[in-house]
Amino acid sequence: MVTALRALRGHGAIGLTELASRAGLSRPTVEGLAEDLLASGWLAESPPETGQMGRPRRLFRFRAEAGYVLGVDVGSFSVRALVCDLEGHVVGRSVTRLTSEASRADRLDGVRSAARGALRDAGLDAGRLMAACVGTTGVVTREGVVKLSVALPEWTGVDLVAELNDDIGPVVLVENDCNLAALAERWTGVATGARDLVFVLSGVRTGAGLLIGGELYAGGRGMAGEIGALPLVGWHRAPSHLAGFPGLPAGTPAEEVAGLVFAAARQGDPAARWAVEQYAHDLAEGIAALVLTMDPDLVVIGGGVSRSGDVLLEPLRRHLDPLCLEPPELAVSTLGDQAVVLGAVRHALDHVDARLYDVDATLPEAQPS
Amino acid sequence: MVTALRALRGHGAIGLTELASRAGLSRPTVEGLAEDLLASGWLAESPPETGQMGRPRRLFRFRAEAGYVLGVDVGSFSVRALVCDLEGHVVGRSVTRLTSEASRADRLDGVRSAARGALRDAGLDAGRLMAACVGTTGVVTREGVVKLSVALPEWTGVDLVAELNDDIGPVVLVENDCNLAALAERWTGVATGARDLVFVLSGVRTGAGLLIGGELYAGGRGMAGEIGALPLVGWHRAPSHLAGFPGLPAGTPAEEVAGLVFAAARQGDPAARWAVEQYAHDLAEGIAALVLTMDPDLVVIGGGVSRSGDVLLEPLRRHLDPLCLEPPELAVSTLGDQAVVLGAVRHALDHVDARLYDVDATLPEAQPS
Repeated sequence: MVTALRALRGHGAIGLTELASRAGLSRPTVEGLAEDLLASGWLAESPPETGQMGRPRRLFRFRAEAGYVLGVDVGSFSVRALVCDLEGHVVGRSVTRLTSEASRADRLDGVRSAARGALRDAGLDAGRLMAACVGTTGVVTREGVVKLSVALPEWTGVDLVAELNDDIGPVVLVENDCNLAALAERWTGVATGARDLVFVLSGVRTGAGLLIGGELYAGGRGMAGEIGALPLVGWHRAPSHLAGFPGLPAGTPAEEVAGLVFAAARQGDPAARWAVEQYAHDLAEGIAALVLTMDPDLVVIGGGVSRSGDVLLEPLRRHLDPLCLEPPELAVSTLGDQAVVLGAVRHALDHVDARLYDVDATLPEAQPS
Repeated sequence: MVTALRALRGHGAIGLTELASRAGLSRPTVEGLAEDLLASGWLAESPPETGQMGRPRRLFRFRAEAGYVLGVDVGSFSVRALVCDLEGHVVGRSVTRLTSEASRADRLDGVRSAARGALRDAGLDAGRLMAACVGTTGVVTREGVVKLSVALPEWTGVDLVAELNDDIGPVVLVENDCNLAALAERWTGVATGARDLVFVLSGVRTGAGLLIGGELYAGGRGMAGEIGALPLVGWHRAPSHLAGFPGLPAGTPAEEVAGLVFAAARQGDPAARWAVEQYAHDLAEGIAALVLTMDPDLVVIGGGVSRSGDVLLEPLRRHLDPLCLEPPELAVSTLGDQAVVLGAVRHALDHVDARLYDVDATLPEAQPS
């Protein structure tokens, strides 16, 4: 059953002969499995294909609408939520704006509101979710508690599973946002196929997420990738070079600083170019420490500055390459501000897939349309 | 066959009933498999156990002497070689002394001479080796070429597989020495059971080896753990604090410096204590970068200074803990100068085991006594 299900995923509608060959099973076996999966609601039959001769060919497809997942990105200035079907197609989305000073209660309300908004947009209720994943800045324990957050006020100690289970349960996975962004880059970004990956979030703050062997690597205590905590490697002061650019209009919101500085540098403003130079220098130090420890296949630069890759990449390479034994592969994210929320969706989908493909467990229930 | 073989490893002589229960197979199946494995030379029958009643119980054991492996550690001042049987019992050993200035040709001769010496000590010829592994300082490619070595003269570019295949072939695995030491710590040292491990070689030079998920992690280009190449984190200057201790007798050989300084510090010599303090400070910086990237279960301090753990640990913790988000677990190696060569043996054994346990391959030939 699991073999047949696996062979059907991500392929649209296929016939029984093709399914048998993909699953490595006999045609009669596959025919029986298909009937069982049709009955349990995991398969749907598409209109048959009429060939030039013979009987019309029956076509089956995986019912992506047999369940849904929710991904959430809790940021400093917003909470983003996406609802996707089991093939990862977005069916609902919502964004709640916040200030970076929002209290814990206000931010949690923002999470609930974004989740409800995305479900409403999808026309679904929370009962249709087979898994939900919340990405947050900070060090996250295996139990989903934020053990340490420097960026968000009152956020250290928040137990996101306990806080959100009633609203978007039953399954709430919690992960560090940079780790999820790394997962998204491998799923649908610039890192498809990468095994060992470093994702660097760069913008208002600087952080890193790691994949090893294609999978999330958070470390035993959830602290992998926290190289920014080492004062020797410049990440703590990197954003201050951008914020200190004298050409910024008074009262520029923090989330707009990087974009303005890079835009000015693109137009040749000497002070902006100097700020970018200093920023690239400090960013390179932390990346070099990650590269010299992990030797990844690829380093992906994401976060706010990824929109300015054309300006950043040259000085970054210039500072980074001499620090490493060999220049690392470097790419700029194209997922923009969707990286974390897409990674949350992917993590939730992986959780569902692990249940679907668990040969020792009974198949979860598929939902009707 | 593989299941039965696996169930027999590391248990001494056992009866068929116990073997059947360990392998999860029926008693008649196991009886048949045991006869086949006896015939092929992978099992031996031990003298039967005579119980209080009934027939004597037949006992079988895995023939650890059905094959041998060789492990080699190419160091600055010596080449160490061990020959072990397939259960990892040492049956032969040899050490060849070198100077740190030895040419490539002289060092390669030292490797061949140590290998031959260990085989002679074991009373075996090279044809009995099922695998051989050589550990060397430097960055090693997947093909076994030393891509970069700072510590050994004329060593960059040496193709150890090509150089040694004729003498200690057919299978020559080549690995970075710190990675192998990490493997040894997990096998038989202070890190048994650790999943994610950082091994720090500290002494005349400083290096690191990583295990992730219990397995060697070398990175795609063999450069994982090379944090010492980052000038920001002090490893490049760490040994100079010990070498600069004014109490050293003129002409002290490099390999004896650390021991003398730590001995003087243990006796309260202020200059030696200061040298140790500075050394611990610089060592801590690189370890912090590894810990903040990887969040390992355990950090093992090995190499020359591991004999002086009583003196080093207190200042090392004092400098390290404030640099990390949470103090990492820290242990001092008890394998001394055997860590790398034992790791080479373990890596060679793992290579043999992978062949023995490969259900898709034919069982390799067992050797007669």
